[in-house]
Amino acid sequence: MSRTFTDRHRVVAFPLGGIGTGNVSLGARGDLRDWELGDRPAKGNRSPNTFFAIRFQVGDTPPIAKVLEGPIPPPHDLSHGYHPNTAAGLPRFAHATFKGEYPIATVDLAHPDVPLDIRLEAFTPLVPLDPDDSGIPGAVLTWSLRNRASEPVAVTLVGSLINPIGGLAYDGFGNLAAGGLGGNRTTVRDTDGLRGVFLSSDSIDPTDLRAGDLTLVTTHPDVTIAPAWLRGAWYDFLQAFWDDLVTDGLLEDRGYPMSSEPGTTDTASVGALATLAPGASVDIRFLLSWSFPNRTNAWWPDPAKGRIRNHYATRFATSWDAATYLAREMPRLEGATRRFRGVLFDSTLPTEVLDAVSANIVPVRSQTCFRLEDGRFHGFEGCFDDAGSCEGTCTHVWSYAYTVSALFPSLEREARRIELTLETDDTGYMSFRAHRPFGSEFRWPWGDQRPEAAIDGQMGTVLRAWREWRLSGDRAWLEPLWPGICRAMRYAAEHWDTDGDGVPDGRQHNTYDIEFHGPNPLSAVYYLAGLRALEELARVMADDAVAADARARFERAGPRTDELLWDGEYYVQRIDDVDAHRYQHGTGCLADQLLGQLHARLLGLGDLLPSDHVRSAIGAVFRHDFRRDFRDHVNAQRTYVLNDEAGLVLCSWPKGGRPRLPFVYSDEVWTGIEYQVASHLILEGLVDEGLEIVRAVHARHDGLRRNPWDEVECGHHYVRSMSSWALLLAASGATADVATGTLGFAPRWSQDDFRCLFTAGTAWGSYRQRRTAEGLEARIEVEGGSFALRRLVIDGAVALELEEPRRLSPDQPLRVRVGEPYPYPG
Amino acid sequence: MSRTFTDRHRVVAFPLGGIGTGNVSLGARGDLRDWELGDRPAKGNRSPNTFFAIRFQVGDTPPIAKVLEGPIPPPHDLSHGYHPNTAAGLPRFAHATFKGEYPIATVDLAHPDVPLDIRLEAFTPLVPLDPDDSGIPGAVLTWSLRNRASEPVAVTLVGSLINPIGGLAYDGFGNLAAGGLGGNRTTVRDTDGLRGVFLSSDSIDPTDLRAGDLTLVTTHPDVTIAPAWLRGAWYDFLQAFWDDLVTDGLLEDRGYPMSSEPGTTDTASVGALATLAPGASVDIRFLLSWSFPNRTNAWWPDPAKGRIRNHYATRFATSWDAATYLAREMPRLEGATRRFRGVLFDSTLPTEVLDAVSANIVPVRSQTCFRLEDGRFHGFEGCFDDAGSCEGTCTHVWSYAYTVSALFPSLEREARRIELTLETDDTGYMSFRAHRPFGSEFRWPWGDQRPEAAIDGQMGTVLRAWREWRLSGDRAWLEPLWPGICRAMRYAAEHWDTDGDGVPDGRQHNTYDIEFHGPNPLSAVYYLAGLRALEELARVMADDAVAADARARFERAGPRTDELLWDGEYYVQRIDDVDAHRYQHGTGCLADQLLGQLHARLLGLGDLLPSDHVRSAIGAVFRHDFRRDFRDHVNAQRTYVLNDEAGLVLCSWPKGGRPRLPFVYSDEVWTGIEYQVASHLILEGLVDEGLEIVRAVHARHDGLRRNPWDEVECGHHYVRSMSSWALLLAASGATADVATGTLGFAPRWSQDDFRCLFTAGTAWGSYRQRRTAEGLEARIEVEGGSFALRRLVIDGAVALELEEPRRLSPDQPLRVRVGEPYPYPG
Repeated sequence: MSRTFTDRHRVVAFPLGGIGTGNVSLGARGDLRDWELGDRPAKGNRSPNTFFAIRFQVGDTPPIAKVLEGPIPPPHDLSHGYHPNTAAGLPRFAHATFKGEYPIATVDLAHPDVPLDIRLEAFTPLVPLDPDDSGIPGAVLTWSLRNRASEPVAVTLVGSLINPIGGLAYDGFGNLAAGGLGGNRTTVRDTDGLRGVFLSSDSIDPTDLRAGDLTLVTTHPDVTIAPAWLRGAWYDFLQAFWDDLVTDGLLEDRGYPMSSEPGTTDTASVGALATLAPGASVDIRFLLSWSFPNRTNAWWPDPAKGRIRNHYATRFATSWDAATYLAREMPRLEGATRRFRGVLFDSTLPTEVLDAVSANIVPVRSQTCFRLEDGRFHGFEGCFDDAGSCEGTCTHVWSYAYTVSALFPSLEREARRIELTLETDDTGYMSFRAHRPFGSEFRWPWGDQRPEAAIDGQMGTVLRAWREWRLSGDRAWLEPLWPGICRAMRYAAEHWDTDGDGVPDGRQHNTYDIEFHGPNPLSAVYYLAGLRALEELARVMADDAVAADARARFERAGPRTDELLWDGEYYVQRIDDVDAHRYQHGTGCLADQLLGQLHARLLGLGDLLPSDHVRSAIGAVFRHDFRRDFRDHVNAQRTYVLNDEAGLVLCSWPKGGRPRLPFVYSDEVWTGIEYQVASHLILEGLVDEGLEIVRAVHARHDGLRRNPWDEVECGHHYVRSMSSWALLLAASGATADVATGTLGFAPRWSQDDFRCLFTAGTAWGSYRQRRTAEGLEARIEVEGGSFALRRLVIDGAVALELEEPRRLSPDQPLRVRVGEPYPYPG
Repeated sequence: MSRTFTDRHRVVAFPLGGIGTGNVSLGARGDLRDWELGDRPAKGNRSPNTFFAIRFQVGDTPPIAKVLEGPIPPPHDLSHGYHPNTAAGLPRFAHATFKGEYPIATVDLAHPDVPLDIRLEAFTPLVPLDPDDSGIPGAVLTWSLRNRASEPVAVTLVGSLINPIGGLAYDGFGNLAAGGLGGNRTTVRDTDGLRGVFLSSDSIDPTDLRAGDLTLVTTHPDVTIAPAWLRGAWYDFLQAFWDDLVTDGLLEDRGYPMSSEPGTTDTASVGALATLAPGASVDIRFLLSWSFPNRTNAWWPDPAKGRIRNHYATRFATSWDAATYLAREMPRLEGATRRFRGVLFDSTLPTEVLDAVSANIVPVRSQTCFRLEDGRFHGFEGCFDDAGSCEGTCTHVWSYAYTVSALFPSLEREARRIELTLETDDTGYMSFRAHRPFGSEFRWPWGDQRPEAAIDGQMGTVLRAWREWRLSGDRAWLEPLWPGICRAMRYAAEHWDTDGDGVPDGRQHNTYDIEFHGPNPLSAVYYLAGLRALEELARVMADDAVAADARARFERAGPRTDELLWDGEYYVQRIDDVDAHRYQHGTGCLADQLLGQLHARLLGLGDLLPSDHVRSAIGAVFRHDFRRDFRDHVNAQRTYVLNDEAGLVLCSWPKGGRPRLPFVYSDEVWTGIEYQVASHLILEGLVDEGLEIVRAVHARHDGLRRNPWDEVECGHHYVRSMSSWALLLAASGATADVATGTLGFAPRWSQDDFRCLFTAGTAWGSYRQRRTAEGLEARIEVEGGSFALRRLVIDGAVALELEEPRRLSPDQPLRVRVGEPYPYPG
């Protein structure tokens, strides 16, 4: 059962919007909040006068009108109260109940006097494997009403939206200030079954970053539309709108010129009219869409750089076009979205895992990521409230993330292309932040130094090239990358392994934004995994020399790593004086010590180190780094977990040896690392430990403390949190190799009756296994795409091997009884 | 019993600081917050690295260190977590309990492991009638520790403070940015029994608005001082400070140059050392003081205007001088402050009333008000988060306020001087916002129009001139004002009473920022009160002609007002078409309809209208305008009360006739009006109704919804809320007339055993009455100042009449048994 939230849960913000489109979020009260539709994040940005309201009349009783939101929770400590353009003073519903199963959220509203069941359902289409149809700049908002009264109820359900084009600004009192407003045009339209308003600007230049338009329409047949609220003094706009609505449920067209006065803008309202017989229901669907096509061709708005359009603008010239597409393709888009949500949540996996997996799809559909008209895909690490945070699709952070490769693998392939062709130089040095697509070079903001290459990011990119190959089997994509992969690995051997023993020991920059010195498990294990990926890719590329060399290096490096770093319980950094350099970890138990091993396991690269050591070490990470209470935790760094909360710190020193100044972040807690450790624990059969970590993250994101759909590290919607998809991979043991046509499953629990979502590069669907009297029966139902299956592996054993591939597709499910001939009867 | 708050009450902020000094506030966790020490408000402004911490060691057990604060309450939804300069990651106490009885607050801290009782007490001296000693730029912070363990406990209690001179700025990650920093000097001093640090700047010009200094000292004899935290990279500053403290409880002087590097500043720590035997206690007192002497000689920072210094800078050249004064005069200052708090709260009046009275002393000691070196006193209406809100000691808002006249009457006299000599022109037009002291004229921000005079403000100023006379008997002050008073009243007769019937009927600008048209109770009753004040002042000035004219006008106008406006239940506006002008109230039941009558009653001017009508009308205000639930209240204006809260709206239309667009603010709730109505209800014997209103305000300011020490209207610390002192006047029936030597009391409840604070212009103290078998005994104890008593009136009857005045003073209490000869024995 997914959690429910109420109006008390003031930090709930469920992002709507697609890949590279920006977002508007749904709050737990049913409020639309955090309007960040433009070229950058805008947390807290509100849209004045923008809300849904209902006016209803039961039989001949007096009409009642209410804003379709739950109560505004405290604190109410604004210097001047709530401004009328927040509509805070209008009647609302006494109770709101919110449920979010990404990508679909619902809000139920109730009030003592109101004899209507009222539900809002909101989503932006999410079609696995299809970033275009998962990248529509709009949202579907469906109000479902049911009349519980014994008399007919006449209803007007009205959505209002301000025209913000040019930019909203406020004076100190909260009144709208002139800013870039003026010439804001409202166009009332009724075409293709859509009725509503198109909001644009006559005054903003189309190349301006602020240029754009918004659409609010309903598919409901019977409508009443006010193109503009009263252009009055003081707070008359709201009084007049409300009185207009209450009086007869019909909205007045005041006959203003359709373009606003200089320095002002208009608010438009679109109402749907219905009369519900006793017991009757109606669904009233609104579509909200937007188009803010322009960005600078740079990571941040930079006047020196030219304009470039968002990818979505190549598909939809305006928001009206997006709405039209959304409406026309609704059955397909809505169907795929519902099936995805259904398969993901109709699972035997625990709610905490499903929430972790689904909630961290958000980063790729947030302002953290963007797509450009020339096909490029880029990601920050996360978002400041009002800007991207840490540019460059940062290799070391993105290496933790599995979600995008699982759901939208073409985007990850594009990132590898940039990293391995543009950002890896002739020496194999890879800039861990991509700047060259924008015609610049990454430099530290201080001085003008070229940053060192990051060993974890560089190895991660090689590993992910292998991953993307497995999920695509796309040689045309891989071949141009192959030289870069070879150079990147050669660079590692030459620059980091200074003594040539296969264990990096040089100055090793990494994701903690510092350098480790000497042999250490993060670098060493990542390097081992990189060597294995190199070997496998070399086989694909039929480059036997490279394959043999990688193998040889790996076979030398593996034992040496274990010999050097194993302390009998876990792996440690070997450094004579841990304080000789600042920011080391020494004997500390590093949560990330086996990250390379996790990747290797998930990507079919096998054991890098003795399996008993791995199992011991990942157990030690949980034992030493997980804390069930933070009240006495000493953390002089950034604070993500506190008080009575639980979480996994990045490092601890159970045996002493803590450096005077340990590496920055060592005392912090990052969900992205918590998920990778939890995944590894689950893979190793330490399921309770893994789930306890996931539950701790879940409890911290309870809608009161933190937003369940915003896991923060160095920014909102932080990319590292997309490691949560590894929980699904670990729990289900799902593997996929498109090139060899292999699918594999190995559930870590409830093996007798197990079901979950899977994705496999070219297909996605559900996997189910059941143990009956006749044996273990497995069923694969593809819900989207197709997969040419040659081999099915269950619990590590081949359950099905086919001479000719069988194409699994939505109308071609697969049922296998393990150990029996295929196809078996019945 | 005063309320207690806990760390959950995140909006509690108890302002420290004096009149015209700015503030730093104490949060419910024991945190110092909202640092607004400079020339303008700065809500939310935090001081990095600034907190108290304790390190203690029980016997030989390992030392424990904790920040002396309760837990940080959710939400924890920052984009990058809590920055290390918030110290959020350091251990804290599990529980904080906060109690505030303005001007003294206490915080108790507790934690399972800590065998110490720990209490912080904080105050800034408040000496009634003495704005100088109530205007010290500093705070007294006393930590009381008691050892509950059976072993000795060694303690280091350390306060840390950043040097912010030049201005703190932050980069997107929360790191300190260069801003105006650099050359920040730390001086360690040990003089006059004060040990600690003086923080100044070598680089900021003394005339700069940012110029200033800070002092943090302790009076504790045994200290350890770190003049500067580690100047390191990353977050080393905090790690190094904490490790330094924990290791041996002694702070390291790192030997840096005492002036910080360009673009940086330092944090200093002052520790007090003590060893507590089992059961032993210690009080460790810190003084925090500041000096930011400069303002522009204008309402807002205006580069075109010259500099002027704050009044306090004429007393203290630096914050060190302020701390020295504070320490030297501590017995007197602390004694008066404690006696004031004691007398105020040791009362038979309900807690809600005492909290309302005391909490709304804050505006005069907040950034809402300021004093200048030439003696001028000015007040905004309130505060934006970062600027004054609505300048000009606005006559119509300030007319509601009784607190300043009660506690610091000289400041109110100064305001009257400005209004009646500078701001009242030859025609009697009074600018309701004072600009002339700054050499400018008040104009509306739109166009360049001179605002209309505000009838309520103009009448209020005349009434308050009468009030200030009663509380001072100061002819030298009154005489220069008298011509202005006469002109102001003549203006009213000529400009607002267009038909000469004694009832204003013209275009009447007022505190709702609109104009009423035609006869209406707000204007009419205020005008009646103004005529009565004019008459009484004329008698003081021995101007018989004016007195007679005022009397005649009053006697004509009173009955006419009643005849015109009485609707049988309450007073209404008479206007043919209520929609002919926007923003009228017509038949609405206006909460302020009897405001003039309240003033008249409190100021000894008697009944203006038939007393049965007044009683009916004030009852109607409660009946119609008070709401116990706002969920279905329709308010298209600003929102101060919502959901399940209760409050009194400015107007309602129980009999219909609501204008299409009623006056702005009519649907709002303002505490300043709630208190004046509640006071009037209490005066009229409708005690339960009055208290229900006060309880509603109290419940809304519960530390979760709103800060109990910040009542907001058009800004924080809003001046109108200082009407709450009228509750004390109404409940106690206290009146004072210095010129005639009259004191009066008439408790409205618990007459058999009643005690409360009183102020009387030149004296303040406690009043107590008790009914015993022998009759009613009254006791007056003066705690400060003196009063030359000629007549004591109890319950409207003369209880004591003296030929020669008796001087009441702290060593001269008065005991009277009503009906018996004075002095009576025993």
